Amino acid sequence: MASQFSTKFIRVSEPSPHVFHVELSRKSVNAFNVDFWTQYGEVFEKLAEEDVRAVVLSSALPKIFTAGIDLSDLASLVSSQDEDSARLAIKHLKHIKTFQYAIGAPARCPFPVIAAIHGAVLGLGVDIVCACDIRYAASNATFCVKEADVGLAADIGTLGYLPKITGNISLVREFSYTSQTFSASVAEKMGLLSSVIEGGRDDVVGAALELAKVIASKSPVAVAGTKHIISHALDNSIAANLDYTAVWNGGALQTRDIIENVSAMKARRSPTFAPLRTKATSKL
Amino acid sequence: MASQFSTKFIRVSEPSPHVFHVELSRKSVNAFNVDFWTQYGEVFEKLAEEDVRAVVLSSALPKIFTAGIDLSDLASLVSSQDEDSARLAIKHLKHIKTFQYAIGAPARCPFPVIAAIHGAVLGLGVDIVCACDIRYAASNATFCVKEADVGLAADIGTLGYLPKITGNISLVREFSYTSQTFSASVAEKMGLLSSVIEGGRDDVVGAALELAKVIASKSPVAVAGTKHIISHALDNSIAANLDYTAVWNGGALQTRDIIENVSAMKARRSPTFAPLRTKATSKL
Amino acid sequence: MASQFSTKFIRVSEPSPHVFHVELSRKSVNAFNVDFWTQYGEVFEKLAEEDVRAVVLSSALPKIFTAGIDLSDLASLVSSQDEDSARLAIKHLKHIKTFQYAIGAPARCPFPVIAAIHGAVLGLGVDIVCACDIRYAASNATFCVKEADVGLAADIGTLGYLPKITGNISLVREFSYTSQTFSASVAEKMGLLSSVIEGGRDDVVGAALELAKVIASKSPVAVAGTKHIISHALDNSIAANLDYTAVWNGGALQTRDIIENVSAMKARRSPTFAPLRTKATSKL
Amino acid sequence: MASQFSTKFIRVSEPSPHVFHVELSRKSVNAFNVDFWTQYGEVFEKLAEEDVRAVVLSSALPKIFTAGIDLSDLASLVSSQDEDSARLAIKHLKHIKTFQYAIGAPARCPFPVIAAIHGAVLGLGVDIVCACDIRYAASNATFCVKEADVGLAADIGTLGYLPKITGNISLVREFSYTSQTFSASVAEKMGLLSSVIEGGRDDVVGAALELAKVIASKSPVAVAGTKHIISHALDNSIAANLDYTAVWNGGALQTRDIIENVSAMKARRSPTFAPLRTKATSKL
Amino acid sequence: MASQFSTKFIRVSEPSPHVFHVELSRKSVNAFNVDFWTQYGEVFEKLAEEDVRAVVLSSALPKIFTAGIDLSDLASLVSSQDEDSARLAIKHLKHIKTFQYAIGAPARCPFPVIAAIHGAVLGLGVDIVCACDIRYAASNATFCVKEADVGLAADIGTLGYLPKITGNISLVREFSYTSQTFSASVAEKMGLLSSVIEGGRDDVVGAALELAKVIASKSPVAVAGTKHIISHALDNSIAANLDYTAVWNGGALQTRDIIENVSAMKARRSPTFAPLRTKATSKL
Amino acid sequence: MASQFSTKFIRVSEPSPHVFHVELSRKSVNAFNVDFWTQYGEVFEKLAEEDVRAVVLSSALPKIFTAGIDLSDLASLVSSQDEDSARLAIKHLKHIKTFQYAIGAPARCPFPVIAAIHGAVLGLGVDIVCACDIRYAASNATFCVKEADVGLAADIGTLGYLPKITGNISLVREFSYTSQTFSASVAEKMGLLSSVIEGGRDDVVGAALELAKVIASKSPVAVAGTKHIISHALDNSIAANLDYTAVWNGGALQTRDIIENVSAMKARRSPTFAPLRTKATSKL
Repeated sequence: MASQFSTKFIRVSEPSPHVFHVELSRKSVNAFNVDFWTQYGEVFEKLAEEDVRAVVLSSALPKIFTAGIDLSDLASLVSSQDEDSARLAIKHLKHIKTFQYAIGAPARCPFPVIAAIHGAVLGLGVDIVCACDIRYAASNATFCVKEADVGLAADIGTLGYLPKITGNISLVREFSYTSQTFSASVAEKMGLLSSVIEGGRDDVVGAALELAKVIASKSPVAVAGTKHIISHALDNSIAANLDYTAVWNGGALQTRDIIENVSAMKARRSPTFAPLRTKATSKL
Repeated sequence: MASQFSTKFIRVSEPSPHVFHVELSRKSVNAFNVDFWTQYGEVFEKLAEEDVRAVVLSSALPKIFTAGIDLSDLASLVSSQDEDSARLAIKHLKHIKTFQYAIGAPARCPFPVIAAIHGAVLGLGVDIVCACDIRYAASNATFCVKEADVGLAADIGTLGYLPKITGNISLVREFSYTSQTFSASVAEKMGLLSSVIEGGRDDVVGAALELAKVIASKSPVAVAGTKHIISHALDNSIAANLDYTAVWNGGALQTRDIIENVSAMKARRSPTFAPLRTKATSKL
Repeated sequence: MASQFSTKFIRVSEPSPHVFHVELSRKSVNAFNVDFWTQYGEVFEKLAEEDVRAVVLSSALPKIFTAGIDLSDLASLVSSQDEDSARLAIKHLKHIKTFQYAIGAPARCPFPVIAAIHGAVLGLGVDIVCACDIRYAASNATFCVKEADVGLAADIGTLGYLPKITGNISLVREFSYTSQTFSASVAEKMGLLSSVIEGGRDDVVGAALELAKVIASKSPVAVAGTKHIISHALDNSIAANLDYTAVWNGGALQTRDIIENVSAMKARRSPTFAPLRTKATSKL
Repeated sequence: MASQFSTKFIRVSEPSPHVFHVELSRKSVNAFNVDFWTQYGEVFEKLAEEDVRAVVLSSALPKIFTAGIDLSDLASLVSSQDEDSARLAIKHLKHIKTFQYAIGAPARCPFPVIAAIHGAVLGLGVDIVCACDIRYAASNATFCVKEADVGLAADIGTLGYLPKITGNISLVREFSYTSQTFSASVAEKMGLLSSVIEGGRDDVVGAALELAKVIASKSPVAVAGTKHIISHALDNSIAANLDYTAVWNGGALQTRDIIENVSAMKARRSPTFAPLRTKATSKL
Repeated sequence: MASQFSTKFIRVSEPSPHVFHVELSRKSVNAFNVDFWTQYGEVFEKLAEEDVRAVVLSSALPKIFTAGIDLSDLASLVSSQDEDSARLAIKHLKHIKTFQYAIGAPARCPFPVIAAIHGAVLGLGVDIVCACDIRYAASNATFCVKEADVGLAADIGTLGYLPKITGNISLVREFSYTSQTFSASVAEKMGLLSSVIEGGRDDVVGAALELAKVIASKSPVAVAGTKHIISHALDNSIAANLDYTAVWNGGALQTRDIIENVSAMKARRSPTFAPLRTKATSKL
Repeated sequence: MASQFSTKFIRVSEPSPHVFHVELSRKSVNAFNVDFWTQYGEVFEKLAEEDVRAVVLSSALPKIFTAGIDLSDLASLVSSQDEDSARLAIKHLKHIKTFQYAIGAPARCPFPVIAAIHGAVLGLGVDIVCACDIRYAASNATFCVKEADVGLAADIGTLGYLPKITGNISLVREFSYTSQTFSASVAEKMGLLSSVIEGGRDDVVGAALELAKVIASKSPVAVAGTKHIISHALDNSIAANLDYTAVWNGGALQTRDIIENVSAMKARRSPTFAPLRTKATSKL
């Protein structure tokens, strides 16, 4: 049962076969303390071991996606100032990397993660949606790279991802320097979103779940390979990516899923695919 | 005569001086078997040796750009499964790289290649247009990254190029995971196209040929250098590109084409330029 | 006083605290000779040592941003052809790198530079605005990558920056090959601009100064770090950028500006921040 | 007590303050099964949280360092051949990456790890010593990149590390293609070893522990930074490394350890340094 | 028959099964004109399609390995100076890349190539041996990076390979700046050679053929993978190489060669392996 | 006259035509304060504009190369601890980069710089010799990466250069972690030196000047290109370097120096070459 993956602050369900719904649910504004983001990383680490083929990530709260980091964490950050400065820098470094690793968990999963966004997305929320594969936003969604307002550079993914996944660096810089709030339609213009869905939470989640069902109907070998290769392409030259792809598909083209697709097409039926990973043999 | 470069499945003409038109012409849907894509690569390799200054690539078929790979090739791919798996992987690797090299031929030419797209562009068709310099599409054009539907990750260029040449990775991932068809206007929003031309095949080819004439009127030294340096920029840091550009222009600024441009401007005449390469001396 | 930084061809003022206005002012068309671009680099090098928190760059001329390089420089370039070709190539290389370094000065400053663009932007003008952080354009602005018309590949930044900072490589290539003029609205579609401001010079400068005031009200530690990390992201993998960010923020999170922000928020007052650099200690 | 970190197959002791000794101890030949290499990674992960300043890694067995991977693991690898080939490839990929991560643990520790090698080092043993910082070998040590003999390319580090950490690629290729055994003195000529210590196990462990004591007497801020920056240098350009180093030392130069060193030098006493990390505050 | 691959200037034989001997044989000093190096590239391209498992490259001439480039080619290079300088630069660029591609052919083969060197190795000869996998030299061998003496930077591989494949950049620079001749023993100290074989041509060829026989007795899947991954390691970060290796071995671990090795070991017989590539199916 | 380039702490002479000798001369131990290293950078910046073809760098003091950084600089570093930690980190960052830039000046010169080393080389001295092209050491030379002893990671070049220019990373790490002194012969084994010259200061300077005369007798186009391309090779893939080299030589092969070499060889006379750069035209 999908709900076995739920945690104190995160609800997990399986609204259709192999499609999982991960909902952020910490009252009143989905503020992320260490426990919350640790759970967040762990939920995705666990789902990566299951026969999950697409995930929709959303907020369970009616009015907001997330207010970002919990203020109490910020306070503890500030209060530790009287240590040796170099040791404190190394402690921060280690902390930030652990934090980045948790929030980056969706990018390491073999299945796509679709962020279904409504309401306000503040600070860490932008890091979170950037590390997802696909972003749908309700027309009532707003975004704010809040970190400059707090006195720091966003460090959990926003500044690393935005220049790679969008198409307007002038806007990326403007919003990152000013902490100004921007609307879903500006986010779409910037290239951050696939679509703006008219309405609010239910509308965008509904659209994202429909998309997830389409993805879940495809060969998981094909989808996992496609995700892996696009992520590689963001960080490597075209020539290096073509080479990497050829090595990848050297093995992947041997999948039975291609035969299954051809057979199903001829028989005018839907294809069915084995899970990507069989748990029983995972020890080796 | 341009037509000497025509092959069984490809028509080559020279509608205006130095502007070549390469038309895909295999009935009924421009399905690419090994012969077709081998010819495709060879045509561009040969044109690269001629005094060609711009190429328009289009489909000669009235209703479709290309249906992508020929199904018989796919069948032979599937049927070879009972070899040693590692040797088969290396055979696939070698095959894919040969295939990539052929489809990537336009990117290695010193002149720009403009894809003039109408009708359906399926699977390999997306790889093909990605490796061109400029994309114009008729308003009736549609695109589909068909590979996920077949059970594999696109491996001839689509996944390597799209994240570099467009500005919305959320859409790139969405269409690559789902094999959903998208329209010319969505492709334009995504950043894949220079322009959507109202109409069909004739309209978009006409617009592309006009653009090609403009390019062909410029110094081939300037155009070839510009193409080379932009391609370098896609794959390297800004600092590395600036350095590379300085080395390139150290030689290129010595061209007589600059003097010719200045003279022509003063004399209010059109400049004329020598071919980029003189064949007679090519042995060395 | 800000005006102490003014030069023969550049006017510098401080319209609001820490917000500097740099105006290009060489009659009649802001043509850049060696003196002009040398001054340009030097002005920004000097401002980088001051308590400047945001800069607006514009043209002081009513009708044009810049016509690009001065024709007399081009002439001297052409006239030096009879030297040893290899030595001439090395001389050009050195010259281009010096030129690139001057025009790239805004990218090396710790504060953001906003280009407020009106009228025609020709040739070098495109290199100049590309090296700025943010671009606002008046609706009367037009752009032209003029270099192909002259017989050379743009070599001071345009071809290195455009593929990284915009989201439509097809358009980047089209305009770079053809030297065709494109409008502010096409530039916006391409992803080159944050906004198109209805009107002309005064309108766009006004909007840019407003934006600059917002930036100048933020922690200079946060803004400088954000700028630095986004620039790093353009040229490095996401993983490398996350690592670099963690090292950066290991030190930066120890700033008192975070405490000041929290205090000010609680006290419902505006925060105030120390300058980024204290000149007195700069000898070490 | 250091022994709390011991596991079934690994002995951990602290022969001098902050110097830990990790001994591989699985009879009869230190063959690595999944449990062994999982423990190996975990031991180093745990030590990374402690006030450890240098580690010596050796074999507890008198005659051999390690015979490499356990043959039973190899058997289970071979027996899983009848699955879907693509899924099997992905399972292998995941397995290899987990394995690499465990063996690479010393490289992620903030303290140096010195491999003290005697006897035969086969297959995985080469991967293991490559991921250490420093290699000392007894004159009776021999090395063998055994994987080619088994029918595979070494995949846990050997082929990635050797070309970066040694200075003779001709020898690297020769030994990797042939699985020929090479002596400590050839390994030294190749650049793989700091020193060859005349004798056997006790001699080399003694020398390594002496070196570890020297390292443990230095500022842990200095040592951790040095390790981190050298590792960065192996994988990045000189310019990128210089930049990264400047960011790192921006924080690190603020350490009190510099003052402590100066004071101790003046007072002609040995300096003492605080641990690199204080566990109490590690929650943030 | 191996001799079918012989050309005017190159002799090919198969002294033991799957071990090919490629001998440079152009009187009187193996001077390379365009025909010679074109044949050189083609011979290796063809052998790459055959069941070759190791190649020894040597000179057939008793006293010299090669004098490098043919002086008549140099003359034709010099005589083409009166063209447009930019076009000439592009022609040279194209020529150099074709030349590099031919000389780099051994690096693209799936089998190792061992250079068995005796006598003088001048200019292009250094480029040639650098692109081989393994270098053995007779004690009478001498090396000279002759290009500086001619007035140019070595451009066919020497300067790109030497810093990656050896371990003393001071010597690399010294010999490249001065064109000073260095002995086999200095080359060995520098890290360029696996071994110096006492004697001359016959001695070094004999030793290289012995090594080739050992390589040819191993699984061609293992050897080709090892070669491919080491080459990748020279040009990529350790992390990227580990990832690439995991993808590669995901497929390669499924080879039957591992089972064959285990069976043969148990049965105390020599293993036998299928060719890497079956020509019959190469059309796909 | 060469002596016009001398400064307070640096003596410059021209012992043979185009061969310059730069001697570090600050009593009593060549301790580097800010003035000294600023002068150091400036001397090389100025020589880069002259007709210099090779430089020998040595110490003018009889017993030591350099003791490294001046202790008074270290004191001022330590005393600035009570600022805002983040601002201090940025100040340090800027300081380090300025320092690195000065010490890295030899690497940016078009001519080779040969370090002729005798006596002790401490701390910054290692950074200094690493940034030179070639290193000769007297047998009395000793080296010490002193920074760990002071409490910091070496940040002016040592840790970035050593892993690229030598061939034994185990030794690089050992000496960098321990600050242990190593002899010239160990430095040679590690790959840091071209040669160890028996004797002291006069012997090594004599040998270096001989080498410099050989270099100065070659075409400056060939030498500058060779230096530039080897430096590129250290930081780029082999494929990228081959491409870069082809672009570079596209221009450089057009030099008259090749003709001059051929003519001189035929006429059995020494060739003579024009300076690399003509100062008169340097304004453009």
